[in-house]
Amino acid sequence: MTKTLNDLMTWRYATKKMDPTKAVEQDKVEQILEAIRLAPTSSGTQPFEVLVVTNEDLRAQIQPVAWDQSQITEGSHLLVFAAWDTYTEARIDAVVDQLVAERGDLPTLRAYYDNLKATYLPRDPKENFEHAARQAYIALGFAMLAAAELEVDCTPMEGFDPQQVDEILGLGELGLRSVLLLPLGYRQAEGDWLLNMPKSRKTRDALIRDIT
Amino acid sequence: MTKTLNDLMTWRYATKKMDPTKAVEQDKVEQILEAIRLAPTSSGTQPFEVLVVTNEDLRAQIQPVAWDQSQITEGSHLLVFAAWDTYTEARIDAVVDQLVAERGDLPTLRAYYDNLKATYLPRDPKENFEHAARQAYIALGFAMLAAAELEVDCTPMEGFDPQQVDEILGLGELGLRSVLLLPLGYRQAEGDWLLNMPKSRKTRDALIRDIT
Repeated sequence: MTKTLNDLMTWRYATKKMDPTKAVEQDKVEQILEAIRLAPTSSGTQPFEVLVVTNEDLRAQIQPVAWDQSQITEGSHLLVFAAWDTYTEARIDAVVDQLVAERGDLPTLRAYYDNLKATYLPRDPKENFEHAARQAYIALGFAMLAAAELEVDCTPMEGFDPQQVDEILGLGELGLRSVLLLPLGYRQAEGDWLLNMPKSRKTRDALIRDIT
Repeated sequence: MTKTLNDLMTWRYATKKMDPTKAVEQDKVEQILEAIRLAPTSSGTQPFEVLVVTNEDLRAQIQPVAWDQSQITEGSHLLVFAAWDTYTEARIDAVVDQLVAERGDLPTLRAYYDNLKATYLPRDPKENFEHAARQAYIALGFAMLAAAELEVDCTPMEGFDPQQVDEILGLGELGLRSVLLLPLGYRQAEGDWLLNMPKSRKTRDALIRDIT
C-alpha cells in the first residue's frame, strides 16, 4: 500500500449512515482485530476483550439503548470493547505465564508483576476498571486506523447505556464492562450528513504548548 | 512510503534506553503532533493539551517522580498529555464556535452541544476528568504510530506521580492534569533489554469473542 498514516487519519470520519446491504469481508474484519491485538497496553496486560457481534437480534436489542444509532444494525459487525471490571491475581498471572513462556523466566519480570499485583489487587475495583478502560481507547484508535487502511468505515461510540449493553451480552458474568462500541460497515453517502463536512480540529497552537 | 499499519505496529516497542546524543528533528516532532491533533475525541472536544517539554531542567525534575525512567532525559522531547480537569461552559463553547465557523450555524449542532453541556456541566469533575483522560489515550496511540512511521522511538508511560508532574509544569493553574508521558528519541541498542525480546500479545481467541 502507498497510504501514509496521515492519509488514513484524514480519510476516516465517524460514519453516520451505513449501507445495510454491504457486509465487511471477514478477512478485513480479521485485520482490524489484529490491530486491536497488537495495540500496546499498560504493562502489557491487555485488560479488555472485544466482542464481535454479528448476531442481528442482539444488535437490534443494543441499538435502542445506544441513542438508536442506526449504524449498529446497518453495519455488518459491531465491535464491543469491554474492559475488565477489575484486575485479579488470575488475570495478571495469565499475563506473566505467557511472558515467561515467550521471553524466559527472568527474575526482573517476576518482580515487576509482583509489584504490579501489590499495587492493583488492593485497589478499589472502580479505579482498576477505569485504568483498564483507558487502555481500550488505544486499541479503539488502532482499530479505526486499520479500518481506514482497508477503506472500511466505522463509528466510535460512547453514547450508550453500558449497564444495558452488559446485560444484553451477559458481560457481568465474564467480569467485563462495556466501554466502547465500534460498528463496522460501508458508508451510505446519501443520508450521511457528516460525510461532506470539513474535518474540524483545533489549531496546533490551541492544543500544543512548547515548554523550552 | 510503503509501510503498512501492521509494519508500524510491529516495528514499535516501548524503548527502554535512548541515545542522549541524538535529538529528534523538529519536523518529525511536528508530524507526530499533527497525528495527535487529528486523533478523534468524544464529541470532537479534544479535551486535553499536550506539552512538548524540551527544557532540560524540567525534564530532570520530572525523571525522579517518574520511577527514574531515563528516557525522560535521554530523549530530546518529552510529550506530556494533560487532560482537562473538568468540562466547562467556556471550553465547550470554544468547540462550538469553531464548528459553527467551519461548518455553519446548524441548529442540530447547537442542540447537540446544549445537550452535552446539560450532561457534563453538573457532573462530578472527577468523572469529567476521567472521561477527558480516556480521549488522550487515542491520541497517544496515534502519536506512537506516527513516530514509528518516521522511525522515531518513544516510550508510553503511566508510571509517574501526576500531582508532582502537575506541580513541576504548573498544570493546575491551567485546569489540566497530567495523564501520560511520551518521551521521543532514538533507541540506544546497547542497554535496551527489551529491544530484542519478542513482542508478546494474547492470541486472537484469548482477546476476541465472536457473538454470531
